[in-house]
Amino acid sequence: MAQLLSSSCSLTLSSRNKPYLKPFDHGSTSFSCKNSTSPFRKIFLQENKRRKCSVVVHATAVSTSREAPVQTSSGDLFKPKRVMVIGGDGYCGWATALHLSNKGYEVAIVDSLVRRLFDHQLGLDSLTPISSIQNRLQRWKSLTGKSIELYIGDICDFEFLSETFQSYEPDAVVHFGEQRSAPYSMIDRPRAVFTQQNNVIGTLNVLFAIKEFREQCHLVKLGTMGEYGTPNIDIEEGFITITHNGRTDTLPYPKQASSFYHLSKVHDSHNIAFTCKAWGIRATDLNQGVVYGVRTDETAMHEELVNRFDYDGVFGTALNRFCVQAAVGHPLTVYGKGGQTRGYLDIRDTVQCVELAIANPANPGEFRVFNQFTEQFSVNQLASLITNAGEKLGLDVKAISVPNPRVEAEEHYYNAKHTKLVELGLKPHLLSDSLLDSLLNFAVQYKDRVDTKQIMPSVSWRKVGVKTKTITN
Amino acid sequence: MAQLLSSSCSLTLSSRNKPYLKPFDHGSTSFSCKNSTSPFRKIFLQENKRRKCSVVVHATAVSTSREAPVQTSSGDLFKPKRVMVIGGDGYCGWATALHLSNKGYEVAIVDSLVRRLFDHQLGLDSLTPISSIQNRLQRWKSLTGKSIELYIGDICDFEFLSETFQSYEPDAVVHFGEQRSAPYSMIDRPRAVFTQQNNVIGTLNVLFAIKEFREQCHLVKLGTMGEYGTPNIDIEEGFITITHNGRTDTLPYPKQASSFYHLSKVHDSHNIAFTCKAWGIRATDLNQGVVYGVRTDETAMHEELVNRFDYDGVFGTALNRFCVQAAVGHPLTVYGKGGQTRGYLDIRDTVQCVELAIANPANPGEFRVFNQFTEQFSVNQLASLITNAGEKLGLDVKAISVPNPRVEAEEHYYNAKHTKLVELGLKPHLLSDSLLDSLLNFAVQYKDRVDTKQIMPSVSWRKVGVKTKTITN
Repeated sequence: MAQLLSSSCSLTLSSRNKPYLKPFDHGSTSFSCKNSTSPFRKIFLQENKRRKCSVVVHATAVSTSREAPVQTSSGDLFKPKRVMVIGGDGYCGWATALHLSNKGYEVAIVDSLVRRLFDHQLGLDSLTPISSIQNRLQRWKSLTGKSIELYIGDICDFEFLSETFQSYEPDAVVHFGEQRSAPYSMIDRPRAVFTQQNNVIGTLNVLFAIKEFREQCHLVKLGTMGEYGTPNIDIEEGFITITHNGRTDTLPYPKQASSFYHLSKVHDSHNIAFTCKAWGIRATDLNQGVVYGVRTDETAMHEELVNRFDYDGVFGTALNRFCVQAAVGHPLTVYGKGGQTRGYLDIRDTVQCVELAIANPANPGEFRVFNQFTEQFSVNQLASLITNAGEKLGLDVKAISVPNPRVEAEEHYYNAKHTKLVELGLKPHLLSDSLLDSLLNFAVQYKDRVDTKQIMPSVSWRKVGVKTKTITN
Repeated sequence: MAQLLSSSCSLTLSSRNKPYLKPFDHGSTSFSCKNSTSPFRKIFLQENKRRKCSVVVHATAVSTSREAPVQTSSGDLFKPKRVMVIGGDGYCGWATALHLSNKGYEVAIVDSLVRRLFDHQLGLDSLTPISSIQNRLQRWKSLTGKSIELYIGDICDFEFLSETFQSYEPDAVVHFGEQRSAPYSMIDRPRAVFTQQNNVIGTLNVLFAIKEFREQCHLVKLGTMGEYGTPNIDIEEGFITITHNGRTDTLPYPKQASSFYHLSKVHDSHNIAFTCKAWGIRATDLNQGVVYGVRTDETAMHEELVNRFDYDGVFGTALNRFCVQAAVGHPLTVYGKGGQTRGYLDIRDTVQCVELAIANPANPGEFRVFNQFTEQFSVNQLASLITNAGEKLGLDVKAISVPNPRVEAEEHYYNAKHTKLVELGLKPHLLSDSLLDSLLNFAVQYKDRVDTKQIMPSVSWRKVGVKTKTITN
């Protein structure tokens, strides 16, 4: 195993309980793909429930967690200390893992690294150069003295996930580990199927792992505001009280997702809600808006900690892409009429929200939904803000309308509630304050790395077909 | 291929266009399992889009379909003639396939036969002896002169499904081809995952096949009343108009499913609704209640056409199981308090409803939801009806309460609308009229085949675990 990983980084393998490590004692299953629907090979990192061993960077994990127990609203004492961040090598996951580690939680990252594979396959790249996950963790350790454990594997492979759960014994699982791009899910049938299978089965496996191995563990699951669609009434946080024919009930808010990706999150929400009721799982569903920005206190510490920044037509989100377009003199590409309104938040608020959810856990059996965004904007409003901010930097910014590759309302009512995280203590970073320094200047700093061929939309909602698409530049 | 199938039936293979058949020209893919998550081997039945060939019984398929075109509400002419029944070897599917064939539609059955495998694996058996699908179709042809084509394979295998679609060119697809038991989905993690993967991916594949190969084809999808759960307000047919904070919208009715099976149907409904909007698919979601009975006009024609009848704790539905219990002197097993209320319908109404949906297709882009049941009963009401009817037959019927293996409300409000199919012409068979002749006497007729070990609930919603359960008698 040291041999396997040594090409990319310098690692030592250690065990918290035993100096001796026997990582590959699973016989013929090692380095094979048991769940052959998954393209990822797995690495078994420890041999049984009691032996704690993992890939850590130059040191055994040391707990530096807060010791104060948390009293939940029902009065039970629950002290979250050990957090597993599934998808911790991704855009939101990496920033979150570092933030939690910095705040004193013990953190383990579980990731198959498939997001990096998608870039290779689609010919895409982050605006920012990103280090390997192994180097990232090594740098974090050398800067802060804090270890983050690393489990590389696919949560759709339940054998891997159950070993990981039994090894790490998390108090909270933050689940970012899903295919998270709507356009990716609309490229072709195989990727639509991959997205739903990967996301739905992965989450089912996490639920079963919690039930079987860590029933007090709090699931903090990343959902999306896109689950609600754009109804003509106010969007509430997860549930709505309906009076109908003289009777009243509070029911799950109706879902109208608009891509196979968004639908996968709807499916997850329904599955999680059921297991909370049937098994007493405690879960928080964070219906996140569109995330922008890249710097957090932790990723800004060193260039090897820098987060990924996607501006391409598949993984780039609207605001991040506009900043890059402004930086390189490419017109801002407004899809259709530009009246599409969504909730947005700074990535510094993503990490804050997740921390608040962990520190204030759901009760056993509770399925809690928070709408995780801070401000609403239409695409036209974003384009206008960027244009004005660009002028101050001497950039000549223009916006053009391009044919909308999606099927969505381009002019609609939108008013979504988002008070629950504020009530827990969220202090939002607002766009107007960070537009120049955190966003536009950042894009300008890296503009020589921009590949303009990646900018235009390449995936059509209407043209998605059954044949595997090969996308190359 | 003839060799392969000859052990179970006498078949000839024929092509509608060419006398020469080359069924296995897919090179190394033939008889391999491309989708290796599926346990089923596939059979490719024709070689390309234009060459029409299939397994038929002693004859080439002859169209005997109605010629009158149907005018949909939007005014477009759409003439459903060729119907593909996915899952046509199952309980509802078999009755439906024969009924549609009898009514003059051209019918093809697509089935992996996995339902028969479940019986073998779980040690279960239908109360009624059922013939092989090949013998069933041969008998149907000899009795009526009507051919039903047969495609054996797994719709999760898109290569199989696309070949089938291009070969048969259906005008309507009736999709029963899902794992349809709530207890089965709660046996263990592998079966929970199988249920959601099989059902969700199978339906996604059908949607892609329609989009790619038969965009006018009407999808008639079997959903379940269980998608709605038991809200404290009236249940509408698919959608509810909500006035909230002074604004009004008609939105998908909130879903609260209560097993991994029921959840899979919720996921399907959301996926289908999206494709109707994004691609213009025409679809009818039949949210079916609990089906009872076994005889239809067609299955009653010959003992080789008899339908399956499940009374076991996994696949048996409440009313059918009660009839068997009454016939053999086993106490009726009421789960918990018995106040659980659901919609029920006679299988003769299932086939009628599907026919009505096909004959009156949804418009392109329309996602239509019908609640498919005729009467509501609580479990206690059913037990009482059976007890009284049993007395008339000289049976001594008792009901006992057993611990509820499910997680569900045992006393609740329930009032579900079901007018849309009546408006299309449904003439319900009511339970009171058929209880003695169609149900109890039928169970008495076959009571020597009852295996009482199968009757009690064997699957617990709360105890479902991650390890594969082996269930044997």
